[in-house]
Amino acid sequence: MSSLQGNLLVAQSGGPTPVINASLAGVIAEALNHEDEIVEIYGGMNGIQGVLHEELIDLTQETQQTLRALLHTPGAALGTCRYKVKKSEDFDRILQVFEAHNIRFFHYIGGNDSQDTAAKIAALAQERGYELRVVGVPKTIDNDLPITDHCPGFGSVAKHLAITVREMSLDNAAMGQNDFVSILEVMGRNAGWLAASTVLAHRKEKGDHSKSQSPSTQYGCTAPHIVLLPEVPFNSDAFLARVEEVLKGNTHCFVVVSEGVQDAAGNYLGADTSSTDAFGHAVLGGAGEYLRSLVEGRFDGVKARASKLGIAQRAASHNASKTDVDEAYLCGQAAVKAALNGSTGQMVTLVRSGKEPYGVTTHLEPLANIANGVKAFPEKFIGEDRMSIHPDFVRYALPLIQGELQIPYDQGLPKYAQLSAKRVARKLEKYETA
Amino acid sequence: MSSLQGNLLVAQSGGPTPVINASLAGVIAEALNHEDEIVEIYGGMNGIQGVLHEELIDLTQETQQTLRALLHTPGAALGTCRYKVKKSEDFDRILQVFEAHNIRFFHYIGGNDSQDTAAKIAALAQERGYELRVVGVPKTIDNDLPITDHCPGFGSVAKHLAITVREMSLDNAAMGQNDFVSILEVMGRNAGWLAASTVLAHRKEKGDHSKSQSPSTQYGCTAPHIVLLPEVPFNSDAFLARVEEVLKGNTHCFVVVSEGVQDAAGNYLGADTSSTDAFGHAVLGGAGEYLRSLVEGRFDGVKARASKLGIAQRAASHNASKTDVDEAYLCGQAAVKAALNGSTGQMVTLVRSGKEPYGVTTHLEPLANIANGVKAFPEKFIGEDRMSIHPDFVRYALPLIQGELQIPYDQGLPKYAQLSAKRVARKLEKYETA
Repeated sequence: MSSLQGNLLVAQSGGPTPVINASLAGVIAEALNHEDEIVEIYGGMNGIQGVLHEELIDLTQETQQTLRALLHTPGAALGTCRYKVKKSEDFDRILQVFEAHNIRFFHYIGGNDSQDTAAKIAALAQERGYELRVVGVPKTIDNDLPITDHCPGFGSVAKHLAITVREMSLDNAAMGQNDFVSILEVMGRNAGWLAASTVLAHRKEKGDHSKSQSPSTQYGCTAPHIVLLPEVPFNSDAFLARVEEVLKGNTHCFVVVSEGVQDAAGNYLGADTSSTDAFGHAVLGGAGEYLRSLVEGRFDGVKARASKLGIAQRAASHNASKTDVDEAYLCGQAAVKAALNGSTGQMVTLVRSGKEPYGVTTHLEPLANIANGVKAFPEKFIGEDRMSIHPDFVRYALPLIQGELQIPYDQGLPKYAQLSAKRVARKLEKYETA
Repeated sequence: MSSLQGNLLVAQSGGPTPVINASLAGVIAEALNHEDEIVEIYGGMNGIQGVLHEELIDLTQETQQTLRALLHTPGAALGTCRYKVKKSEDFDRILQVFEAHNIRFFHYIGGNDSQDTAAKIAALAQERGYELRVVGVPKTIDNDLPITDHCPGFGSVAKHLAITVREMSLDNAAMGQNDFVSILEVMGRNAGWLAASTVLAHRKEKGDHSKSQSPSTQYGCTAPHIVLLPEVPFNSDAFLARVEEVLKGNTHCFVVVSEGVQDAAGNYLGADTSSTDAFGHAVLGGAGEYLRSLVEGRFDGVKARASKLGIAQRAASHNASKTDVDEAYLCGQAAVKAALNGSTGQMVTLVRSGKEPYGVTTHLEPLANIANGVKAFPEKFIGEDRMSIHPDFVRYALPLIQGELQIPYDQGLPKYAQLSAKRVARKLEKYETA
């Protein structure tokens, strides 16, 4: 076992998730247990951009109360970026900053682009003979990182979306209108994991939304009735035929559409192709509005409404899954332990125990195997009609949405973590990024 | 005191709110206390439509557990309708059903259209010499009923929207991009109460979203920066100038726009002018996407994203305000008490105590004074720049979002009430509505 001693740097990258701050808390908590090897615990502001600009904060100065509150705080407490490090000057600068601050442990919490950056930093350090341990922490609501069973962030957004579908569906059913089409557009980029997760709203308890039932007996939930995945090219005839079929047996038809759905020609539904003048009629934005207008245009007397939660869905920490929060924290801890054990150029992955009850352990995977890979929603989970989800997916995803957080409130709103963010003194000249 | 004896009928109407079922629970709980006068407690399915079709259920057969669960169940457990009773045949039929089932107490939980219907039923019963006590229960997320200090339903959606703005704003701030415009379209029809309520997200604790602050110190919240109300005609030049101004001092500009905002010519922003609902109200809903395209069209390099929660916002019982739930329940109880005391043709109103701490009492107001009235967001609460909200509104609204529910979960999702919905035997011939 190598007895490397030095400072630790942790940073966050890409789109926030409800639990990216839980991973940060896990890294800090574990690092605090190893003061012989980890002298200082630094946070890089706004991801790798903060490293380039030498904007580091001293995380050991945060209170225990703040660290606890990170478990339910949305956004990304250190800030993130989408800056793509490409130039060799940038990589040189990163190593200069690491050397200047004796950074020997680097943990980047992010998706595949970020792990690609981490891989390059690890390789460069090795090439230059600078001893550095780089262990990444997985993060994405899209659940599309390869190898890991699932990604921290996914379970919480899946839970929020399933709750939202159930709530909306109860509202839809209560309205007692027939021929109502309720559309929910969800995130996920080019992977259907989040869209599929809305079927976790299904409940088989007595009662359903069929026309023979009164609204008050609708504890059971058959919504969503149609799920449109990016992995399945959109076919408007097949879609409209399915809507018609659902409306024959139900008071309403609930459609979930992924933002990444494309037609056979590869065009995103309702993509904004506009350059409208300031006073012109706005082009409808997004897949949900596109489907609303398609449905209303095709069927007389059918009403449709579209909702698009947008950024609200990935920021909904108030509906976080306790399982997801715990696992995000665990991944942060595991990254620090792995680095202390001599690993570098790796990312933490989650491996499912395979036994009942559900459980996970953490493994390590070379960053190169993660970087820039994408795990599409698998064929085996797509229903036969291409617009529904196979029950095996429910068995996969249901454990990930279990458990709720106890969140402290202040004046009617959740009380979030607020880092004191004590700056580490600069040691280098200023640096200009592109 | 009149000692009328007979059966009670309760029904729900219009768009569901997070607490319309709490009012139902309040009616049932109070009615159960008066078995000498109230013999049976019936629910009308799907509002007045269920009365017309003689679709009644026996609510005394529900368990206490079910009644308790109504306090956190979205939708409307009895179902609602938007059917407008106009024909005299319809009114005749309603009285026939009441007579057939010895209905002597009628409580309609709904907004102004519904209270208009209730007023007409009360008047007709009096005219025909049929002894009937009609006391309405207020309900609307839009908070636009006259006379009452506020409406059950408003506080819960206000709380959900304020939480959503804070969560989204933390995400926006974390991204570390400058020149980002985040747009949230909210409900409220032609009244700005819900749009205004998003300023409850403002927090003055140290830190804000100004460019001099790092994301991690942004516990304070200045979002939303711009609030567009239906009461203020939209002026695109003034709006765009304000966006530019906000972006000079902040990493992002958070815009809340009411679905009911109109330009000076009276056109809804991005509205689908082709369709109207059963009451002739224009179907609203493209304001957010309209602004997104307006902003991106005007400013080079500025990115904008729009979210539209749609029905999800009025169904978000998981974020209900305990204060709102308690008051909705109280209004249900008060309606029953008032009817037993001999009142008819009245609606329950909430009157604020005017002292600290916040408290309310219930009063009664003739239905005629409520029916079809609308309380616009008042001038005194509109900020000087017409795109912000006066602090006096916060003093008005903050008490309404206080407190959280403890919701039971089952397999990762909230566990809702499921009425057993035992049907009352029909006594009349079938009836055809329009």
